[in-house]
Parts: sequence; structure tokens; C-alpha cells
Amino acid sequence: MKIDYDVIIVGAGPAGISAAIYLQRSNLNCCIIEKNVPGGLINKTSTVENYPGFNAISGPDLAAKLYDQLNYSKIKQYYEEVVEIIDEKDYKTVKTTKNEFKTKAVILAIGREPKRLENKNERELEGKGISFCSLCDGALYRGEEVSIVGGGNSALEEALYLATICKKVYILNRTDTLRGDEFLKNKVLNTKNIEVLYNTQVMEFNGENDILKSITIKEKEELKELDVKACFIFIGYAPATKFIKNLEILDEKGYIIVDKNGRTAVDGIYAAGDIIKKDLYQIVTASSDGAQAAVSCIKDLGIKEG
Amino acid sequence: MKIDYDVIIVGAGPAGISAAIYLQRSNLNCCIIEKNVPGGLINKTSTVENYPGFNAISGPDLAAKLYDQLNYSKIKQYYEEVVEIIDEKDYKTVKTTKNEFKTKAVILAIGREPKRLENKNERELEGKGISFCSLCDGALYRGEEVSIVGGGNSALEEALYLATICKKVYILNRTDTLRGDEFLKNKVLNTKNIEVLYNTQVMEFNGENDILKSITIKEKEELKELDVKACFIFIGYAPATKFIKNLEILDEKGYIIVDKNGRTAVDGIYAAGDIIKKDLYQIVTASSDGAQAAVSCIKDLGIKEG
Repeated sequence: MKIDYDVIIVGAGPAGISAAIYLQRSNLNCCIIEKNVPGGLINKTSTVENYPGFNAISGPDLAAKLYDQLNYSKIKQYYEEVVEIIDEKDYKTVKTTKNEFKTKAVILAIGREPKRLENKNERELEGKGISFCSLCDGALYRGEEVSIVGGGNSALEEALYLATICKKVYILNRTDTLRGDEFLKNKVLNTKNIEVLYNTQVMEFNGENDILKSITIKEKEELKELDVKACFIFIGYAPATKFIKNLEILDEKGYIIVDKNGRTAVDGIYAAGDIIKKDLYQIVTASSDGAQAAVSCIKDLGIKEG
Repeated sequence: MKIDYDVIIVGAGPAGISAAIYLQRSNLNCCIIEKNVPGGLINKTSTVENYPGFNAISGPDLAAKLYDQLNYSKIKQYYEEVVEIIDEKDYKTVKTTKNEFKTKAVILAIGREPKRLENKNERELEGKGISFCSLCDGALYRGEEVSIVGGGNSALEEALYLATICKKVYILNRTDTLRGDEFLKNKVLNTKNIEVLYNTQVMEFNGENDILKSITIKEKEELKELDVKACFIFIGYAPATKFIKNLEILDEKGYIIVDKNGRTAVDGIYAAGDIIKKDLYQIVTASSDGAQAAVSCIKDLGIKEG
């Protein structure tokens, strides 16, 4: 049996690139496979002001720096989609749209996509007023009026955070009641600068000079225009992990379950970044996860070879 | 009771600075207290090649970037030593050599110092051949002969890692037996390019043009000169946590015990970075810890205020 690689990293966002940096510094034979562009979701962030090392950097610029570092690490890169991973016990088979590789270990760093409303102008205005991360982008709207779409726990938590920074936070909620925990609901309802608009649907995002200017909403049956500088959409995430369901390492929402060092329940399969079940989804935490998974992998492979 | 701050961060290394970045983006009133210089141990690293965002950067340069970001965050900075922290239940008292502050929360990011041999030229050659981190600096010595001081588990693990990169690894061990686990010992003894020198003491580090050239060792009673490009010292760390012993959050080695989100067992006291008990001590993991502790703190204080 010809083994092609010691380790295959799936996904070249911050977690995958960080893992690559660490793995390439050992003597393991590795590659990284990305179906889209390097940098992952960072490419869709306007300004990153909370990654240590850069006061403020545009998302695409930070993605470019990470890509540059990937090249600098000299890791072999494939741009194709992984469609299946099979645990053959002694090795793993990784099937892509173009290739089939045998590898001793796999690090899954495939990220996750925020769910979108798929409304008019939504994708065009991403990073230009439309955001999926208040910790990342909230500070850009200090003292401004902003809106949140969603009524679950994460929407409510983000509303409370934004309320500490922004002048006013509108929560646009489709039904006549918020879905989150009682505790969070009470806190939101008692926060002066949060206003919940019930039975409200987002119809359209309106831009001006390529920046969000207002949202057309339907409140009950009435169309209105809401002037806000930003709209934060928190209607959930969609971890795209169906293709690894066979490995039985997913929780009920599709996130990968790992221990604190990035190991899954399957020997030789590791995971890192936004695709793992955890509490804080940030560039810096994903990078840390990637380093941790890589080091666990180096330790385990070293031991197995001994 | 006048409360001076919502949160006081103790320590301005990567973990403390990362926490500051996150905290300053909320509306909490914070400060950071550092007894030495910003950047912590990074200042003593020659080249950092494993922090995502920078292909290769000198330790002091990265420290300067973090310091710059600390200023950019506009957090209030104090340069003085914290000597006592008292948990008064509703608030904490933080006593320094110059001030006494009342605060709602404290994030401890005080780092740790590697133990040194305190031999001639040791401090002068730190970052110039003498290192305390093989994952950080090992790759600089690819294909070279290097040495390790120590015989415990961490020394043996680091030797195995370095053996995958370097031509030859000498382990300089004071006694006639290695102290680490049987498993690791066997692995080390079966690795061709690792040689253990028993009953061997490091007498002196010899530099040339300000770079390590050789080590004077005493093997049994004989003085010898060992030509190596690097010496990695793994004789343990000294967490300087005696001043917070009263908080009862330390393990038997003096590290701070936290949950996965940076919370200690004491309400309102968080910890992050090299001072916490964990498995991987890297710049990127410390930065991640700092972000995590800050976000936990923001959530908890938000909830308490509600």
C-alpha cells in the first residue's frame, strides 16, 4: 500500500493554514486541500481589528498574508473538493473531485458558512454593512444605529454585546415572540437601546455607493424603510459536514466533536477551527486550534512510527 | 465603594494584549498592568516563524507590533508590579507597588519564565543559539547538530521533535539515568540521531560573534568542548504565582487552573496564556486564550450588570 502523505489538511482557512505552518516545521510529508480560495471566511470580512499583530487590516489583505505564509511554508497545495474520507484503520483514503490519496492522518479544517437570508443585495453588501460577526465588526459602528436579524440565543447575545457599543440596536424578528432563553430575553427587553420589531421580515437591503444604507422591512403587512448602518444576520450556521457523516464524529448540529487537543474519536482524524463544537469562533481561536491539532498529530505520528 | 475599573488585566504578553484588544472593543472600563516590558517572552525569541500572519518576524519586532496594537486600543497602561489580589466577593482589590485599585474582574496573564542554568554567557546568548522552545526555534537548525539540557518528559519529547529536523541531537543529562517515562525513554534510546551524554554537566556557553558556538561540558570529571549550533534548555518552568496563592486557583506546580473558557474557580477571576495549566504553550495559543478569557469576562459582567 503506497501512502501518499503523512497528513492531509482539508481546508485552507486560518485553522488549516496554521496547522500547515506547524506541520511543515516537522519532517512530516503533508498537503493541504482547499475547494475555494485560501483564507476562508476572512475574505468576507471588511476590517479585522481583533487579530493580534495587526491594528487594523482588511479581511482580504489578512487572507493574502496567510496565503503568502502557506506558500512560504512550501506545503503542497491542491485546489479541489474533498468528497469522501474513509477510515481504513491503518490509513485513511481521501477522495476529491480529481484525486484519491492515501494518508496516515487527516486534519479537518473545513470551516462553516453563516446562513443567509438570500435577499436582494445581501451578498453584494457583505462586509459593507452586512455582517455575520458582531465581535468582529461591531466596533466599526460605535454610536450608530444597527440591526440584527434573528431571535434565538446567539442573536440575543449579539444584541446585548452590540448594545454596549452602538446607539441603538433593532432586533428584526419574524414571529411575535423571541425564541431565546428566558434569561436572555428578559435582559434584552430590559436594555433601553434595544428595540424588538416583531412580526417583521427583511424584504430587501438597500445600498448607496456600495455601502448599506437602509433595509426594507415588512412589519405585519406594511412596508417600511429602516435606516441602519449595519445589519448583523444571526440565523444560524450551516456546517457542511455531510460528506464525513460516515466517520461518526459529528454532533447533532453537524459540528465535529474534538477533545481539547483537537483529536476526534477516530484515531488519526483531527479537527480545528470553525467546524468544531466550541464557544468562541474567531480568527485567533481558529489559528490556535490549527496549531493544537497539528502538534497532537505530530506527537501521535511520531509515536506510531517509533 | 468606588470601583476604579470593570476589568484589570495583569500582564502584557500575547495573552494579556489579546484580552485587551477584545475588552476595549466592548464598553468596559479596563486597564492593563505590566511589571516589565510589553510582549513578554516573545522579546527573548530570535525568530518567530509559526505565528499566522507573519512568514518570519523577529521576536522583538512582533512584541513591538503587539505593543503598538495595545496603544491603538487606547487601553490605560500601568507599568508596575502587582503584589497582591484580594477577592472581596463584590469586587477585587489589586495592589501594586505603586497603587491600589478596585475592580469588578481580573484577567491574569502573567506568563511564566523558563528555568535557566545560570551559567556563563547563558542570558547573553538567549535567542542566539540558546532557546527554551524547540517548536519555535527548532526549524532554524535544520540539518545541524544541536543539544538539549534535561532528562524529564519535556526534554525527551523535545528531543524527539528536534531529531526529526536536526542532523544530531545530544541530550546532556546530569545523572546516569533519564527521568522521563519508560515509553519516551525507549523511543529516545531507539532514535539513531539522538545521543545521550550521561553524568554530564554544562559548565559554560561559548559564543563567537554573539552567536553560540560550543558548550563546555564536564563528562564525569573530564572537561570537553561540544560544538553545537543550538542548546535547548528544558529543565522546567517557574510560574511566578506565589503572590496569588491566597486565591486558591493554583495546581501543585503553581499553574492557574481554568475551564475551557478561561474562568477560574473564583467568580470574576480569569486567566490566559502561559500561566494556565494546558498542553501547548505557543504565541498563537496564548493569544487565543486571551481572547477567550476576555469574551467570558464580557459575558459575565454584562449579565451581572443586567
